[in-house]
Amino acid sequence: MPRSVDPADRADALATAVTDIAVESGFAAVTIREVARRLGASTSAVTHYTGGRDDLLRAAVRREIDRRRAAAERAIGPATGREGLRLLLDWAATAPDERGHRLWLALVVAAPAEPVLRAELDAFNTWWDATVTGFLAAEHADATAADLITVVIDGLVISAFDDGTPWPAARRRAVLGTLWRTLGW
Amino acid sequence: MPRSVDPADRADALATAVTDIAVESGFAAVTIREVARRLGASTSAVTHYTGGRDDLLRAAVRREIDRRRAAAERAIGPATGREGLRLLLDWAATAPDERGHRLWLALVVAAPAEPVLRAELDAFNTWWDATVTGFLAAEHADATAADLITVVIDGLVISAFDDGTPWPAARRRAVLGTLWRTLGW
Repeated sequence: MPRSVDPADRADALATAVTDIAVESGFAAVTIREVARRLGASTSAVTHYTGGRDDLLRAAVRREIDRRRAAAERAIGPATGREGLRLLLDWAATAPDERGHRLWLALVVAAPAEPVLRAELDAFNTWWDATVTGFLAAEHADATAADLITVVIDGLVISAFDDGTPWPAARRRAVLGTLWRTLGW
Repeated sequence: MPRSVDPADRADALATAVTDIAVESGFAAVTIREVARRLGASTSAVTHYTGGRDDLLRAAVRREIDRRRAAAERAIGPATGREGLRLLLDWAATAPDERGHRLWLALVVAAPAEPVLRAELDAFNTWWDATVTGFLAAEHADATAADLITVVIDGLVISAFDDGTPWPAARRRAVLGTLWRTLGW
């Protein structure tokens, strides 16, 4: 991590090191020492450029969540109601790659023990819930519909691992198709 | 870990140490050293009584999965078809406690990097899939129904964490209720 590097590039390298470790071994394995090792830097250099481990976690997870949310919003575009929901869920069920799924599960697993991760996950969930219920309200769907939708999307994330290889997009979309029929759409 | 202890108790203490570590920090944190530390034993004592880290993981996960499968089979009893499926899913959606959910997610997250865990998880999934499709076959349900059921159950496991506190049983059962309606039951 040379000093001459651009601050944004440095922040990016730190965030990538954190997420790489989390994807491979979980957030408990993210230590200043391990981040430094990945970057070929000293632990004091890492500490110098950050406010400590919590800051590293927060910045890395926020970058990831911001990217995810931006991708979801691009997928939705100007659509609302039923069509907005369909675009959001199709994105959620098929767009994130295996690395993205692994990172998400690592985040969910670690959040109870790491308040910094809990806060970032809560912020994302607040956005997700507001978006889903907003789309559903326009269609006069009942409250359990939002729960079912969230559960199915979460379940598709796990299904990326359960069988060793991720399900093909067509198989995921077939499950979503059943969900649409449940909603009477 | 005194020598005089009963071998079954010793195996149980080792398996509990492994699962405790996995629940708190993930399977990557399970090392001979950490298991020894938890038991107040030397690493050589742990090595002496086991065939190494993979054996420790296998025994601990197999104990957990055997218990889970036995609990599910008790919940199902002699029921078949629709009623068997209903009892299995109600058990899966509501019975495992937070520790059980955390251990399961840790297992799913770690399986791609740990062939020993992958093999144990595959064995459980084979049983789960055979049980679900057996019940569904009796009701002439389509192939996507089995996928939807697995996805909803997996999703309910994640929902135990996503919001910080597990959903109450009534909320989980409401989601299952929607699933029954989807299946036309």
